[in-house]
Amino acid sequence: MQLGIVGLGRMGLGIATRLNRRGHEVRGYDRDPERRREATGQGIACSETLSELTKNLAVPRVVWLMLPAGQSTNETIESLSELLESGDILIDGGNSFYRDTVRHAERLKNQGIQLLDAGVSGGVRGQHDGYCVMVGGEKEAYEKVQPAFRDLAMKGGCAYVGRSGAGHFAKMVHNAIEYTFLQGLGEGFELLRNSGYEYDLASLADLWNHGSVIRSWLLELAEEVFRSSPDLEDVRGWVADSGEARWALQEALERGVPVPTTAMSLIMRLRSRQEDSFSAKLVAKLREAFGGHEVKSSRDDRRMP
Amino acid sequence: MQLGIVGLGRMGLGIATRLNRRGHEVRGYDRDPERRREATGQGIACSETLSELTKNLAVPRVVWLMLPAGQSTNETIESLSELLESGDILIDGGNSFYRDTVRHAERLKNQGIQLLDAGVSGGVRGQHDGYCVMVGGEKEAYEKVQPAFRDLAMKGGCAYVGRSGAGHFAKMVHNAIEYTFLQGLGEGFELLRNSGYEYDLASLADLWNHGSVIRSWLLELAEEVFRSSPDLEDVRGWVADSGEARWALQEALERGVPVPTTAMSLIMRLRSRQEDSFSAKLVAKLREAFGGHEVKSSRDDRRMP
Repeated sequence: MQLGIVGLGRMGLGIATRLNRRGHEVRGYDRDPERRREATGQGIACSETLSELTKNLAVPRVVWLMLPAGQSTNETIESLSELLESGDILIDGGNSFYRDTVRHAERLKNQGIQLLDAGVSGGVRGQHDGYCVMVGGEKEAYEKVQPAFRDLAMKGGCAYVGRSGAGHFAKMVHNAIEYTFLQGLGEGFELLRNSGYEYDLASLADLWNHGSVIRSWLLELAEEVFRSSPDLEDVRGWVADSGEARWALQEALERGVPVPTTAMSLIMRLRSRQEDSFSAKLVAKLREAFGGHEVKSSRDDRRMP
Repeated sequence: MQLGIVGLGRMGLGIATRLNRRGHEVRGYDRDPERRREATGQGIACSETLSELTKNLAVPRVVWLMLPAGQSTNETIESLSELLESGDILIDGGNSFYRDTVRHAERLKNQGIQLLDAGVSGGVRGQHDGYCVMVGGEKEAYEKVQPAFRDLAMKGGCAYVGRSGAGHFAKMVHNAIEYTFLQGLGEGFELLRNSGYEYDLASLADLWNHGSVIRSWLLELAEEVFRSSPDLEDVRGWVADSGEARWALQEALERGVPVPTTAMSLIMRLRSRQEDSFSAKLVAKLREAFGGHEVKSSRDDRRMP
């Protein structure tokens, strides 16, 4: 089928390439000319403007958005709402907050445009292995786009999961679980590294992937990571977060669902990005004040357990 | 090869049966006659006493212990130290605390008996699929028992990981990671269930196992659980813990390794076993005292977010 793809970053280009190779007629757009050139080099026909893209698609159009959640996505949906027509289908494949999705879907519905929300997991490997795609919105719209969803996904990795927002909500929770798996692996391997035993962490990850209870794709990636860098000496312990765990925590708090390890996994990422900790400084100074306990100068960067 | 297996519970019998079917000459012992009868019914020759077991094994003997960690294991190692001879190999396949293991190994070494510590993962499915086995101790002893380890394990799921205690330490950390994966999945699915969307949780677990970043064996089990009980209505949210996460936390604290989600996963299990919470009662009463906030009577069992 014919699709326009807006946003040709790492994920967008992966999706465009996979669909293109599987016989879909993909037309891409990115506001960055460099990314358009890269996509063109990989056989993706590109339009120079969003308006040109919509003109180059046959009606009813199918347009797939693959942009960072928030402002980029919101603004582009705004622009597209003026370029698309009744009967067109817009798919937001990014990690948008599901409440934004529901709001957009309601507004577009008044214009006869159907918005599907597609949570897409699989990372950079998805282009080769197939993604996992969870889709919310009108089921009728889902069925129209199913040939593309199916070819995008790993076999068995594509499903309609409910009304508008259900795809992005499920992806948000998926990513929150991912935070806890990552943090749990991080803690476990740091403890192994400090055990006093001379573990080969790559081999242990590989071993655990053969029959253990925690066998998983992330553990397969851990093996690869340790094979190429056994001591992780070239990387700083600095971890970004892209919003999903914050939203998951916010939703959990609103619903009274206790999610302590989700919260803690997020908090450890916040801490990972601090050079030093104001709260730790204050704790140190107060311990000094009441008990005369040792305080380290900010000029002394040694850290002791 | 010939092995004695001491402890014919769920794991011990699974191991005995798997080794027996793969051509090893297995002789079992359990102090519970009912378990001996069950094992005999599955083709495992059993001895009536520990002493008879050791007499029925050719020297140098190989004896595999599969008992609950702590007192049972410690006492049985004590008894066996009087029945085994120099040149024999004893394997502790249970989830013993690695410091106990190191202590036992040192003592047995004086008698010429080699103690191997084998961390065994794979749960009740291991009997069919093969276990994951991580072994610590003298490498020479490991090599002697390797034919049995190899047949016990899933292909690729057996390795020597280091000197005495390394197997049990690795298994301890494996189980600590397992705690975090389980808690993360628990939190995620509880949030999905409270989302307002009508997710089919079994189908979602299945979907996520096809191409998503969190695909894993535990998620496969989650699918099975939700298929047989979509609302988990027949089970109480009561979770035991068998020590490994406590030890992992204790080891992490001694080494100054921050493991907040491991700790929190353990703490949520402790909380799951409380009918009510004394600390929550106190917090409620103090809030009432300073702010006149609502307190629920212990006769009112409704819980609100």
